[in-house]
Amino acid sequence: MTCRSICAIEGVSASGIKEGKNGLALISASGYTAGVFTQNLVKAAPIELMQERIKKGKFEAVIANSGCANAYTGKRGYNDAVRMSEIAGESLGIDPYHVGVASTGVIGKYLDISLIERQCCDVAKNIGRSESSETLAAQAIMTTDTFPKHALVETDTFSVGGIAKGSGMIAPNMATMLAFLYTDAKINQKQLKQALSQATRRSFNCVVVDGDTSTNDIALCTATGEAGHVNNTEFCTVLETCCRSLAQQIAADGEGATKLIEVTVLSAMNEEAAATVARAVIGSSLVKTAVYGEDPNWGRIVAAAGRSGIEFDPNAISLWIGDGTNRYPLVMSGEIIADLAMAKTAMKGKKVIFEIDLASGKEKATAWGCDLTERYVEINGRYTT
Amino acid sequence: MTCRSICAIEGVSASGIKEGKNGLALISASGYTAGVFTQNLVKAAPIELMQERIKKGKFEAVIANSGCANAYTGKRGYNDAVRMSEIAGESLGIDPYHVGVASTGVIGKYLDISLIERQCCDVAKNIGRSESSETLAAQAIMTTDTFPKHALVETDTFSVGGIAKGSGMIAPNMATMLAFLYTDAKINQKQLKQALSQATRRSFNCVVVDGDTSTNDIALCTATGEAGHVNNTEFCTVLETCCRSLAQQIAADGEGATKLIEVTVLSAMNEEAAATVARAVIGSSLVKTAVYGEDPNWGRIVAAAGRSGIEFDPNAISLWIGDGTNRYPLVMSGEIIADLAMAKTAMKGKKVIFEIDLASGKEKATAWGCDLTERYVEINGRYTT
Repeated sequence: MTCRSICAIEGVSASGIKEGKNGLALISASGYTAGVFTQNLVKAAPIELMQERIKKGKFEAVIANSGCANAYTGKRGYNDAVRMSEIAGESLGIDPYHVGVASTGVIGKYLDISLIERQCCDVAKNIGRSESSETLAAQAIMTTDTFPKHALVETDTFSVGGIAKGSGMIAPNMATMLAFLYTDAKINQKQLKQALSQATRRSFNCVVVDGDTSTNDIALCTATGEAGHVNNTEFCTVLETCCRSLAQQIAADGEGATKLIEVTVLSAMNEEAAATVARAVIGSSLVKTAVYGEDPNWGRIVAAAGRSGIEFDPNAISLWIGDGTNRYPLVMSGEIIADLAMAKTAMKGKKVIFEIDLASGKEKATAWGCDLTERYVEINGRYTT
Repeated sequence: MTCRSICAIEGVSASGIKEGKNGLALISASGYTAGVFTQNLVKAAPIELMQERIKKGKFEAVIANSGCANAYTGKRGYNDAVRMSEIAGESLGIDPYHVGVASTGVIGKYLDISLIERQCCDVAKNIGRSESSETLAAQAIMTTDTFPKHALVETDTFSVGGIAKGSGMIAPNMATMLAFLYTDAKINQKQLKQALSQATRRSFNCVVVDGDTSTNDIALCTATGEAGHVNNTEFCTVLETCCRSLAQQIAADGEGATKLIEVTVLSAMNEEAAATVARAVIGSSLVKTAVYGEDPNWGRIVAAAGRSGIEFDPNAISLWIGDGTNRYPLVMSGEIIADLAMAKTAMKGKKVIFEIDLASGKEKATAWGCDLTERYVEINGRYTT
């Protein structure tokens, strides 16, 4: 079997365990590390810890648990996060200060440290560099995810691989997600940080499942350097491609989702304006339910764009619907030309694509989301109990 | 039978008709009129027309249809809105320029003017001042509403009465709603406008059903003056009380709702900050589904407050849950003291109340919303078809 994500990167080994709701992943890889974190004012304990530790920039490993977010747990939670890094450090024989820590799960609950100790001990024994090891790690961080998320982008000279979890509480400005990315490219920390920020902005920050921003979002990227120096522009592109693949997987696996929705906004004044409109449309419950019902109620798209806060001339816009193969115009330069029967056929598949031309500039952006279904309600109506 | 809303106001007569999805309400009342309108960039034709006409300030009647929003319909839509005012003017023998026009329903569809002509003619014949007339008007403007919304607040000297429709596409900065308010108070147009703006800010703008802002929102208030001059402060309070009653009815009747959610934010830096936090919590799909499932997942409330953009110290806040009769603390000054079994009992009824003390000032605000249910998905998955 060939590795499909992080274990394809030279210098990275991993494993994981999942017992009911409680999972633990351990990834060993040494190198400069950059991170991006949730913008929620209420930050989980591991986020607070990581925001300090990332400054030093060098990580040897990452430990991540699922089932308990260790968020809104005060001083004790912070100490628990530190303890997690010590547990990983002891298991792997490394300095705990160089261990990345992440958590996902229920907010307002303390970690079960003895469980983490036991799980980490078990996982450390099995850490390896196979396809099954990386899959165990990806599965260990899942909460309501229905499949593990993997991505690998390879060039002649270097590669970027990643695993991620998403599912609920996914909103503009980082999905509720953990993402652990690795590359064998040799790249300095400043460039790594810039590349990760840009890639995050164009991928994870453009995924909306339900408009909530988590307390625990984190994306880390470690560069092991094994492949030597690389072209920085090429590295940015490859990292972004890898992040976009994970972002799309997160969107497609949104809680209760049956369809992936992709919204591309064209001819915007600038990229941020395009992204803002795309996120407003993808975040609209009315658009999401219409996609679920395969109802080409395109007026809701125009209405969502109109409330995004971005200025444009509603009478100049164009709008298309497509499924990746076919593409039908709904509005052309403000003129309604919707053939609702054709539009409806474009909504039958697993992917529904909307393109909106704002006729106000040259920039574009894409956002991803999913439909809103009865199953989302069911999943989230009984989460803690 | 006693009138319960607009027909209790001296000088107001009304009626309405509802045929399938297509309804038409006609209200006759002469006086200074103030209006507040949707902040969506994409404004329906009647909104554009009203924003011009409201400047003159005197209305003689209002005509409102349901079933077609006359939004995103361009020049033809604008002419249709003008035509609606002419139809009402002809039926009532008044200058069409003094007729208020409102629409609600599907976006991107042209009005059926001949249907409106016929319905208006029928309705005009039955216009009256009884409880059944005002109910017919309130029913005529319903879309997915399950009950007509009425409110009446009476003082010794004057009264304010209103009808409204809400249900879906209900978000901060005006619900998807039409609200027609009447008072017999004699009040000048400037004061009326200020009073309506403040009342709207504290009522309709604090209702969130699904985070979408409609293209058609409108609230109009006409003062017939029959009761003579009144105290302005008292008028503001009474108008606000009437609007809050309608706002709560709209929230309780949100699409698919089974429970009314009320969020009061206390000890905020200012009223706007309090309202912003309250709306973020009430708009959270995760909070809404938790309430539906009677799951006291209070971490989601803290997380939603944290992403509202308002600064506060998460470790100083307090949080209560209640049902209007009992009230249980979940967090006190940052300390988790949640008794989840007790909290769960507070979620059994038709109304769930959260109170959040931000410990950062002296101001407060309340927002209303509803739970998110499978039924919401069902209603909105097949709206146009």
